Formats: sequence, C-alpha cells, structure tokens
Amino acid sequence: MEYSQYDQNELVKMLDEERKAFKQLQKRDISVDMTRGRPESSQLDVSMPMLENAGGYNYVIDGVDTRNYGGLQGIKPARELFASIMGCKDDEVIVADGSSLDLMYTVVQFAMQFGVLGSTPWNKLKKVKFICLTPGYDRHFSICERLGIEMIAVRMRGDGPDMNIIESLVRDDDSVKGIWCVPKYSNPSGITFSDKVVERLATMKTAASDFRIFWDNAYVVHDLYDKGDKLKNIFDVARKAGTLDRIYAFTSTSKITFAGSGLAVFASSVDNVNAITNELFYKTIGPNKINQVMHVNFLKDLSNVKAIMKRHAEILRPKFELFNEKMTAVFEGDRYVTWSRPRGGYFVSLDVKTCAKRVVELSAEAGVKFTPAGSSFPYHIDDLDENIRIAPSVPTLEEMDYAVDVLISAIKQARMELVLRKIYHYDARA
Amino acid sequence: MEYSQYDQNELVKMLDEERKAFKQLQKRDISVDMTRGRPESSQLDVSMPMLENAGGYNYVIDGVDTRNYGGLQGIKPARELFASIMGCKDDEVIVADGSSLDLMYTVVQFAMQFGVLGSTPWNKLKKVKFICLTPGYDRHFSICERLGIEMIAVRMRGDGPDMNIIESLVRDDDSVKGIWCVPKYSNPSGITFSDKVVERLATMKTAASDFRIFWDNAYVVHDLYDKGDKLKNIFDVARKAGTLDRIYAFTSTSKITFAGSGLAVFASSVDNVNAITNELFYKTIGPNKINQVMHVNFLKDLSNVKAIMKRHAEILRPKFELFNEKMTAVFEGDRYVTWSRPRGGYFVSLDVKTCAKRVVELSAEAGVKFTPAGSSFPYHIDDLDENIRIAPSVPTLEEMDYAVDVLISAIKQARMELVLRKIYHYDARA
Repeated sequence: MEYSQYDQNELVKMLDEERKAFKQLQKRDISVDMTRGRPESSQLDVSMPMLENAGGYNYVIDGVDTRNYGGLQGIKPARELFASIMGCKDDEVIVADGSSLDLMYTVVQFAMQFGVLGSTPWNKLKKVKFICLTPGYDRHFSICERLGIEMIAVRMRGDGPDMNIIESLVRDDDSVKGIWCVPKYSNPSGITFSDKVVERLATMKTAASDFRIFWDNAYVVHDLYDKGDKLKNIFDVARKAGTLDRIYAFTSTSKITFAGSGLAVFASSVDNVNAITNELFYKTIGPNKINQVMHVNFLKDLSNVKAIMKRHAEILRPKFELFNEKMTAVFEGDRYVTWSRPRGGYFVSLDVKTCAKRVVELSAEAGVKFTPAGSSFPYHIDDLDENIRIAPSVPTLEEMDYAVDVLISAIKQARMELVLRKIYHYDARA
Repeated sequence: MEYSQYDQNELVKMLDEERKAFKQLQKRDISVDMTRGRPESSQLDVSMPMLENAGGYNYVIDGVDTRNYGGLQGIKPARELFASIMGCKDDEVIVADGSSLDLMYTVVQFAMQFGVLGSTPWNKLKKVKFICLTPGYDRHFSICERLGIEMIAVRMRGDGPDMNIIESLVRDDDSVKGIWCVPKYSNPSGITFSDKVVERLATMKTAASDFRIFWDNAYVVHDLYDKGDKLKNIFDVARKAGTLDRIYAFTSTSKITFAGSGLAVFASSVDNVNAITNELFYKTIGPNKINQVMHVNFLKDLSNVKAIMKRHAEILRPKFELFNEKMTAVFEGDRYVTWSRPRGGYFVSLDVKTCAKRVVELSAEAGVKFTPAGSSFPYHIDDLDENIRIAPSVPTLEEMDYAVDVLISAIKQARMELVLRKIYHYDARA
C-alpha cells in the first residue's frame, strides 16, 4: 500500500479507523508469546512414548551400564544415529547434554581459554572477530557479545551469505576466527545455503589457521513439506579439500523430542573431536547417558526420525500457511512489506521497512509478543529497522489467526504513522 | 610388622614365599577396577522406579510445561528439595544438569573470564591460587591445573584442615581466591569438618573480596550408619556473619540416583545465584527439566531421600566393613599401615608409608586397579608416597574379598622390598 498517495487529513482519518478496529480486535483477549521458537505442547506429546517406555529400555550397552559414570563422547548408538543425521562418521561425533547452544558456548569458551588445536588462546589476542550473517540467530550473537568477540555483520542473500565478502574477510584478516551459520532453513530467514556457497565456505583460503565455521545445523531434519530443501553435505566437501578441521558442526533434538531436555551434538574432524573430548574431561565425568539410551530407543534411525518430523510438520505447517495466506491477502506485492516462505525450520522472517520497532511495540499492546526488533542483528542494530522474527510454532491455529490480525493492523498503523511523520511532519502518536 | 627385625636372607625368603602366595591368589582370576567411586549396579537399581514411572509424572508445573524451553534456575520443586537437603533457601539454589563437577568447572571458568560479582576477571591477574586440602579430590585439582590456578597444598587433620594455616594464607595474600572442601566424609579421608572449622572458614578475614569457598557437599546425605556425622550448616554461620557471598556450595544426585545422569546443584547467596544465572543465560536456554520432574517425583522430600540412602548404605556398608575387618586382622597397630574408618561417603583412605606407588603397581598385576598413587594430591605429588584411595562401592562383596587379599599381599611385598633396599641395599626387584 502506497500511503503517500493520501493527504494528511485522509491519512489521519484512516489511522483513526485502524486504531478503532485494533481496539475492537483486542476484545478477543488473547495473548501470545512468540518471542522464542518454542514447540507447541502437542509437538511435545509426540515424544511422550519415550518417557512412557523409559522403564523398559536396556541400559546396558556393549556390557557397559549406562546408568553409571563415564563415556565422555556419548554412547556409540547415539553417535551412530547422529552421524547418519549429520552425514559424517560416528567417531566424528560427540553426543552431549541439553542444547547445542551450551555446546557452542563451551567450544568457543575452550578456544578463548586454551586456543584451538594448539593455537594461541583467543583470550590472549588483541582482537577476535566473528562473521555474523544477518538477519541471524540472536543467541549466536550474544555469545560473541559476552565473550568480547567483535562481530562483523554480513547480509544474507537468497542462497546464503555473499561469498565474495566472506572470502575477502577471512583471507585478509587473521583475527577473523569464526563465522556463525544456520545453513538449512536459516534462523530467521528460512534460507538454505546453495551448493556453491557450501563449497566456497569449505574451501576458501583463511588467514587464520584456527578459523572455524560454526555450522549450526539446527534444522537438519526439520522439513515442513515432503520435499524439503537439500543442503549439500559440508563434511564431504571439506573431507575432500582437507579442511575438515575447519568445520564445527552442531545439532540437537530440542525440536525433535523435548526442548532443552534432549541431546546436543558436536561433529567435526577426529582431531577436533579428540581435542574437545580432552577438554571435556576436566569439566565432566560424562553426559546423561540414560537420556541417550532413551533417545536412541525412541528415535531408532534416520528414517524413523524423518517419520517423527512429519508429525511435527503436520502440526507446524498449517500455522506457517495461515500466516502466509493472511499476509498475502493484505500485502501481496507491497514493496514495503515482505516475508519469507520457508519450507522448513522454525521461523518466518518479516521485513517492514523502517518501522519494525513500532510494529513490535503495537503488537505487544494487543498481547502479541514478538522477539524485540533488532534481535536478529549483532549488537541489536538493524540499521533499516525492518526485520521481525516470527515464530509460528508457538500459537495454536486460533491464536495464530489472532496474532496475524494484530500484526497486520500494527503494520498498517506503523506505516501510516511513518508517512504522516516523514512526509507531513505530523506526529500521530502525540 | 617391623620387617627390619629380619636379616637379609630371612627377608628374601619371606618375600619369595609371599610372591608365591600372590601368584596362587591370582588364580582366582578376578579383575576389579576401583579407580573411581562408581556405584555398584544394585545401587543403580534402587532408582529404576524413577524411569519406570516416567510416563506418568505431571510435567506441567505451575502452568508451565517443563518439556519446553526455559527455567534457567531449575524448577521450583527441585530447588525446594535441594534447599532442604543443603540447609538453605530455595532462591539460593540453582538446579542444573549432570554432575557437580560440571557446575564447579563452569563457575570457576566464569570467574576466570568475567570475575566474581564485579571483581577483575581472574584471567587478567598475574597469579590465582587455590588452597587444596590433601589428600583431596583429584578432579578439583585437575580443574586448577587446566585453568592455570596455582595450588597450595594443606594437610587435612582429624577435624578438617589446619585452620591456623588457612587463616594466615587467605589473610595475607589476595591472590588466594579459593579453597576446595569436601566438608562431610571428605574424599578420600572420610573426615567431617568440626563445627569450629566450619565457623572459622565462614568467618575468617580474607585479603581477596572475591575469595570463594568451594563447598563440595558431595556426601551430604551419604551416611553408612543410622547415626551419621553431623556437619554444621555453613549457610547459618555465613548468613549471621554476613559472608554468604563467600560460599559456593555444590551437591548432586550422582550417588543418590544415577551417576552422571542426575541433577547437579549450586547453592549460594541470592546475589551469587543471580550472577551465575545471568551468565548461564549466554550458555543455555535452560536445564533438562524433565529429569528434574522425574527426580522430584521419585525423591519426594528429605525424609524419603534419607530412606533411599539407607538402601544404598545397606549395599555399601558390608563392603566398607569387610575391608576394615580384613585389614585389621593383618595390620592392626602397624605404624606403617593405617586407614580411615569413615561413617559415610565413598572412600577409604589408606596410608602405606613410602610405598604407595609400588602397592598400586603390584595390585594391578593381580587385576585390582586403584586410583594411581599421588592422585589425591595437587600435581599428583604425594611427597611421602603413602596415600591410596580405596573405592569400596565398586566391587561385589566377593570381589572385595579378593581385592583386599591382593592389597594385603601387595603391601607386604612392597614393604619387604623397601626394607631390603633401604637397609640392606638389596634390590629384590632386579
């Protein structure tokens, strides 16, 4: 909608009417917290059989009682399962507790304190920089922020990051030590990296020998449709190129079984896996292997994991589609309002030019909470103030219907306010 | 036994006979790995109902679905349970995943990287020192070793550490930032700190404002007898003295439910708990709350925990007693061979003057593995080469019978070798 075609009086009147409609809408008295990509309860129910059968699993594996101490790298059947999911070998996998966030933080902290495969501890360097693709995952950025790692923002394109920029950054500056990637169904853009991008990342020349690609494959099996995006296997490319040490891959079962109570996975070269395992020795006697036994019994194998993910997709897909349908009905072709139509993952990325903060603020007034605008950018700086991360997993279908109505009205109001202020120098919020 | 009363020929003959008996003994062909304080399988069976009932627990607590993300500090019922076990308030408790070792490492690493309640990060100081009581827990010492923290060894006495030494160390040197304590049934000595020691620790003057007592209350409910040792509540003393910030207390369910698959607990002042929770935010979305629900449903309350610990004691006590009976029958009154008679915990501490390494080596030849001699000392240096940590939990009663026979023979051989070498300059091992 080109609101600038209206004069000030017309716009003030339209805004007034929109506000009345918004008030009316709020009478439905629904509140939805879409700040995080939380699974819905019915998704969690999918994995209840894992708990129901917990008493009957065999906790002795290869003669070792998993109910007891030990096994730093995780139990072999779990490593085998995740090797098949990640597309690597089982001795290239560590299966640990909880979330991949914990593993990512821990691995970066190890590098800060001890270096990487014998390199200088990053704490002792004047400067350490990470490349952060934008929009991206806020929790990646907050690790950098807390550990004093400088973030270089690089925009995402339709097929992944702009590789010309990335290649030049890592080739010329040995203080660039890492890049955060969510290569499949990126958080929040939903983009899957093209084969070419994966190849260039795995083979590019880096000034720093301890440069690492933090390959957060969070949505590795998280397709919304039978035909999901295909991500090229970076292990294959890196193995061939002799750059396997560069790959720090992660995933977890947070959105397969239980969020926060699942398994987290690290996958890399055997040298890296051994080095990280050696560091883990100082930190723990071993992971929660009972949870690992429960998971391998419930998840079984890759094809069964895919069957489980289909059940998640059946719950998630209608909500993604409802969002898209309602937004299309109002904003199709609008150059100021665009959004992603991902085929998997957990987020829709919405761009509303220069009024994201206001849209989030207005929505909150109607009980619909989105992640604060700017969260998907390093230092929370979205210089275009445009991006809002939408998490369709959280609401029920009915709540989603309400949330999108609220969002649509909030966008309309914010844009009218903006045009009034920018063109007519009239502050409609006063 | 005073072997020096025999002449060289007599001793050589006696040693020869002992060696023959040792060979004979080995025909029983038993191997026992007592290197770590692992619970026995029958102890792990005690907690199987927790898994058997896992499908039926209510995972929604105060309206929050614990199967989903969140809850950095742990679920309230778990914090309440551990507050009652630790003797503090529930807002002074964080319940986390896995082992207390992991929590201890994490908290020390936080201090290294970020400091403590606003103090200079320990990484930025020229020197950081910890007081290490000896003999002590090897995993405490390896955290220090790996993080470059200098260890000051202070001998344990019958009622805890020598407080005159401790007080003078912390009063005069602001680089002394911590002390590791296992205050009840110390690992490995079995000693419980006296009231006076607890009081002096909590109230002593410290040069460093960021000095912390790492109060690893690993055996808080781990009595072998109905009448266990009583440890004075350090929270009460510190609260009164205004030094609660100094207390970093830890425990876990590793030896209550499942080793490594249980819950870990941090307890301290509310300020410390908040500061650590704020750091945990960067590291994780939340702990495994499903495991917490399972634990609170199974453990219920302090009195039920004590009932569960009685069942463990029934399995453990006969093995501790068999060890003591067999050793008493041979070495009672021997000034060269002494051992602890703990009323709880997981270890017996054995002292065999200047031949611990050889005893461990000989025992291993007969398939009985003990923790390497010296492990209970910083930098693995036991200057008297006397201490061996015995873990009676591991073997069955039959295996324990064998292990002590092996140990007794190993001690005899080692001592005869020693006397031959020291007095007669005769190397019986050539």
